[in-house]
Amino acid sequence: MIIPIRLESSTVRGYNVTIDRLPKLSFDRKVVVVTNHTVAEFHLDTLLSKLNAKSLDIVTVKDGEEYKNLDTMIEILDELFSKQLDRKSLLIAFGGGVIGDMTGFTASIYQRGIDFIQIPTTLLAQVDASVGGKTGVNNRFGKNLIGAFYQPKAVYIDIDFLETLPKREFSAGMAELIKMSVMFDREFFEFLEEDTLSSKESLNRAIARSVELKAWVVNQDEKEAGIRAVLNYGHTFAHVIENETNYKKYLHGEAVAIGMVMANLLSYELGLISLDEVDRVKRILIKHNLPTTYKIKDIEGFYNKFFLDKKSSNSKIKFILANGIGNFEIRDNLPKEIILKVLSKFKGVK
Amino acid sequence: MIIPIRLESSTVRGYNVTIDRLPKLSFDRKVVVVTNHTVAEFHLDTLLSKLNAKSLDIVTVKDGEEYKNLDTMIEILDELFSKQLDRKSLLIAFGGGVIGDMTGFTASIYQRGIDFIQIPTTLLAQVDASVGGKTGVNNRFGKNLIGAFYQPKAVYIDIDFLETLPKREFSAGMAELIKMSVMFDREFFEFLEEDTLSSKESLNRAIARSVELKAWVVNQDEKEAGIRAVLNYGHTFAHVIENETNYKKYLHGEAVAIGMVMANLLSYELGLISLDEVDRVKRILIKHNLPTTYKIKDIEGFYNKFFLDKKSSNSKIKFILANGIGNFEIRDNLPKEIILKVLSKFKGVK
Repeated sequence: MIIPIRLESSTVRGYNVTIDRLPKLSFDRKVVVVTNHTVAEFHLDTLLSKLNAKSLDIVTVKDGEEYKNLDTMIEILDELFSKQLDRKSLLIAFGGGVIGDMTGFTASIYQRGIDFIQIPTTLLAQVDASVGGKTGVNNRFGKNLIGAFYQPKAVYIDIDFLETLPKREFSAGMAELIKMSVMFDREFFEFLEEDTLSSKESLNRAIARSVELKAWVVNQDEKEAGIRAVLNYGHTFAHVIENETNYKKYLHGEAVAIGMVMANLLSYELGLISLDEVDRVKRILIKHNLPTTYKIKDIEGFYNKFFLDKKSSNSKIKFILANGIGNFEIRDNLPKEIILKVLSKFKGVK
Repeated sequence: MIIPIRLESSTVRGYNVTIDRLPKLSFDRKVVVVTNHTVAEFHLDTLLSKLNAKSLDIVTVKDGEEYKNLDTMIEILDELFSKQLDRKSLLIAFGGGVIGDMTGFTASIYQRGIDFIQIPTTLLAQVDASVGGKTGVNNRFGKNLIGAFYQPKAVYIDIDFLETLPKREFSAGMAELIKMSVMFDREFFEFLEEDTLSSKESLNRAIARSVELKAWVVNQDEKEAGIRAVLNYGHTFAHVIENETNYKKYLHGEAVAIGMVMANLLSYELGLISLDEVDRVKRILIKHNLPTTYKIKDIEGFYNKFFLDKKSSNSKIKFILANGIGNFEIRDNLPKEIILKVLSKFKGVK
């Protein structure tokens, strides 16, 4: 299945996301694959058996979000310059979101921009990071604070790479997939409720629908001036949870799962969603082994941390809410009391 | 005088280059001025007397091409994060090309891109670096090897800032201006032959014409896939000269002046230009105190250094030549012998 991504506002005309077995790829130019040790161990042979290029080099970085920073980028850049890559060369991001974000950002600044393609090997990267062109790295001030909007030339999604993915990481990817259904597509949500995604067909179908929805959003709003903010459903809460737990206790998708439950309770307070619907979302998260609760020790402190988020400007917090399952609602003028009321429901939990 | 820059292929719709006294500027957002110590000493008071912003900070970096690197950028980025600049904040590049290139690149990657404006204070930056959106820094592998194509929101050119500019630097800026006339506009060249540019009117007129020509080129080819390469007239030779002299003996514009003479002699060998025209270009360069010759010690070595230039791919060297004064010609399949013949004319000179 091929999903064309059209970006009308962008300097690139668009690109294709191919969801299928990885095809044979031939390039009449220098190619460098950027990956990490874990992915390389499991899958590099498979990739190399499909790749043909004028010259082919591998740059392997350490595995983990803690290496997603400018220091690692400078190491990658130095390798590219040592290998004398020119403006017509190509990078291949082969790994999860960290590899995709760093490789894309590196491609965007190497000699003011060279081509790159994405071959994501985690569910999260397949449904989320590989579409949309957000690239970047973390620094001591926060996550993804340095980066660029830079689109790949192509994305290849092959679910066979997910066979070696730890179950917990698979679930974290599911959180983003579920998020898309709650925000945009009730029918897709109902499909996810009924199906276990244990067959390759249904998993491919779910990924394809999620990518389609994301492409539809990004096409309308590449630079996050409007509707793209809806992709942050659950994230406003998740960022505080991740911050409070030093990015150690939860995977990003897990924090988003909890954040979606919090956002839904806020929707319920505003009369946008029924308690039955709040429960349906919760059940689907639990089905995929995702956490749905979190003990807030300091309600006021949790609230204040909303304002540290880079996505807010002029101290107005934008809440992305479900307006029933399958529809979104953006609110940026909510009274503090209502938010505190919702947060206080998480004070007593374990 | 306002020159609108339209960039049809770009994500920005375009921007204006204003050539006039610097107007009063008011911004309802956080503003950070990036400058260096030298410019700050002479002109910061003038700038601050014209600026009004929600908050205003100054980041001052060291003066010189040797500080145009990722280390300095990281310092600037750290300052911006410390001052909690958000996505709606604005950077102002206040200085020469080094400041403009670094500030533009910083703006392009700070939270994936914030606005910046250019207030260039050297002639070179006014006619060259401030239009076209090339930003970047150097590294140990070469010049401008890391960067982005990123357009400013506005450019303000005020020739009063040039009053404190060393004469030698003014001349170096003239080299780029003369370059534009030789490549694109015979009438402009004749104006430069006759006028000394000692009045403010004629200097403004010359800058405006040069900016117009550059804007016309960039609008057709933002990413240097075609005609924009013509702006590299003289540069293929200049880069080797700068490399051989360790970037110390000549200012960039001075090396370009020599490079234009070399390119013209190559044009003459190919029958594209007369010796009289070669001399006319030389005279105008001399009138502005620019060097027009350079002693090549090792002809073969000089030739081989063409291939180190990042602008060449697949080992084909693109020569940008004058086809008579006012017209360009691009050649990428010249026999080595002809080039060596031209270079050998510079073997005996002092």
